[in-house]
Amino acid sequence: MPHKIIFDTDPGVDDAMALLFALKSPEIEVLGLTTVFGNSNVEATTRNALNLLDFAGRPDIPVAKGAGVPLVIPPHPTGEFVHGDDAMGNIGWHAQTNPNMHVVEQHAAQFIVEQVMSNPGQITLVPVGPLTNLALALQLEPRIAKHVKEVVMMGGSVLHAGNVSPLAEANVHNDPHAAALVFRAEWPITMAGLDVTEAVQMNAAYFDELAAGGNRFGGFIRRVVAFYQQFHVDWYGMPDGEVHTHDPSAIAYLIDPSIYVGQQWPVTVPTDGPAIGATIADRRLRFWQSPKVNCLMQVDGDRLRALYKMRIRA
Amino acid sequence: MPHKIIFDTDPGVDDAMALLFALKSPEIEVLGLTTVFGNSNVEATTRNALNLLDFAGRPDIPVAKGAGVPLVIPPHPTGEFVHGDDAMGNIGWHAQTNPNMHVVEQHAAQFIVEQVMSNPGQITLVPVGPLTNLALALQLEPRIAKHVKEVVMMGGSVLHAGNVSPLAEANVHNDPHAAALVFRAEWPITMAGLDVTEAVQMNAAYFDELAAGGNRFGGFIRRVVAFYQQFHVDWYGMPDGEVHTHDPSAIAYLIDPSIYVGQQWPVTVPTDGPAIGATIADRRLRFWQSPKVNCLMQVDGDRLRALYKMRIRA
Repeated sequence: MPHKIIFDTDPGVDDAMALLFALKSPEIEVLGLTTVFGNSNVEATTRNALNLLDFAGRPDIPVAKGAGVPLVIPPHPTGEFVHGDDAMGNIGWHAQTNPNMHVVEQHAAQFIVEQVMSNPGQITLVPVGPLTNLALALQLEPRIAKHVKEVVMMGGSVLHAGNVSPLAEANVHNDPHAAALVFRAEWPITMAGLDVTEAVQMNAAYFDELAAGGNRFGGFIRRVVAFYQQFHVDWYGMPDGEVHTHDPSAIAYLIDPSIYVGQQWPVTVPTDGPAIGATIADRRLRFWQSPKVNCLMQVDGDRLRALYKMRIRA
Repeated sequence: MPHKIIFDTDPGVDDAMALLFALKSPEIEVLGLTTVFGNSNVEATTRNALNLLDFAGRPDIPVAKGAGVPLVIPPHPTGEFVHGDDAMGNIGWHAQTNPNMHVVEQHAAQFIVEQVMSNPGQITLVPVGPLTNLALALQLEPRIAKHVKEVVMMGGSVLHAGNVSPLAEANVHNDPHAAALVFRAEWPITMAGLDVTEAVQMNAAYFDELAAGGNRFGGFIRRVVAFYQQFHVDWYGMPDGEVHTHDPSAIAYLIDPSIYVGQQWPVTVPTDGPAIGATIADRRLRFWQSPKVNCLMQVDGDRLRALYKMRIRA
């Protein structure tokens, strides 16, 4: 039985890489996309979600537009400096590629609630952007926590340095109050944070392999990743066209959790001060009683890259 | 030329271990002790400071009594559960061993200011308790930051889990506002935190070696450490009478910094929320402009134990 997922996303170059990975993997059935601000504003990320499904030949998958701003804090600048003005590597996606596609009427949070409550125990939520839609869904219907199969998120960091502050990772930092709510809820969460996503790089030669022989998905990925590669040069000084492997990591974990080693710790998110948006884990299991999160702490990068390539080229 | 130090302390079993180490090391000249709450209330830690100097035959060293409470937060419970009711391993130090000894008239913060301003560039501050006295001294006379030679502190933690909360170490957590002030001042700070102090253990056999042949200092240490060893069993489940090497680490760094590897990072201390009292380091050197702290991150435990034993037995 494949994992039935709702992919909560702010595409985004690595969101696109993750979505195509999911769509090409028989272990995963994408029930819908819910969109959120983050890598760009929610209008742009929603347009990109529709365009990605159009590109992938999957206009049947519903898209529900979600939150455009965080629950409480004023929004941070969105991520165009990482992902391009169109948030898709400056390939010119400033309008829908297929004007006939459209979003569903429900808000993303409503969509999540309805899907989860009508398929109890069946649905995995895969948020790879700010956690605002999940927090809103929890507030609309707290019982979803009991009825979700699991939450597998990209975001946070336990030991690895943050990427937007000394401790915080961008997705959690973009809506720390939402993250605090999500980590307090009684549902099983796996957190693929910087501890594993910055531990695996894909480089220019690898993207060439994805695209070899005119592979359509691989070619698209190589095309959209160029701007993202330049960001990794400018920001991190990374060589060889290397990029970190952020959002695809959540999908990889779903397909083959044995690629990862997780540790079960309560996680709390400060909502102000210099640690705002950090995901602090009680590594001694001594101080906090909140539900334990499966924090992914180790990853086999070779196996992840091999799996990703196999699926994209399949 | 020996390091002229003011030892700011809340004795405390490991404070005693550190003080005797300093007094027996020719590289260090102890100009004075300043006392602070922490391992017990400041009356008890001041009494223990006097008793330790009496025991060591150094009644000439002045003791200035300092802060009894943190700058802002309500005080946490003091550390008798770690150090004994007398904060000296329950050896019965409930009064002065020598009633003729007394503290100087100045407050610890005043003592620090006067010593530093009259010996510019000469004095190293070695705080091994809450940083309240140093913060008060900075507030009395901000110029001390320019005139101190360096600050070598025991406290904080960068990567190691905290010992009083998931991120925070006890000394910093006991007065986070003081620590925040100390880390913002423009003086050179070396931080011997849990990253190195919990990386080195001393065990029962080692304490026997310290005391062998009737060594007076070693015998005292073995006697006061028994209660502290039991705490390490109860709290950490540590075997073989092992204890962590907290306060002696600051002295060891002064004597032989080559035992340690430090990394230079700005450090900020949250003053509320779940990260209160943490020492957050900007490990990417990207986000914060505050002065860099020499954060000790690696230690050669064998060399530290050998040095400590050599000096205590000298």
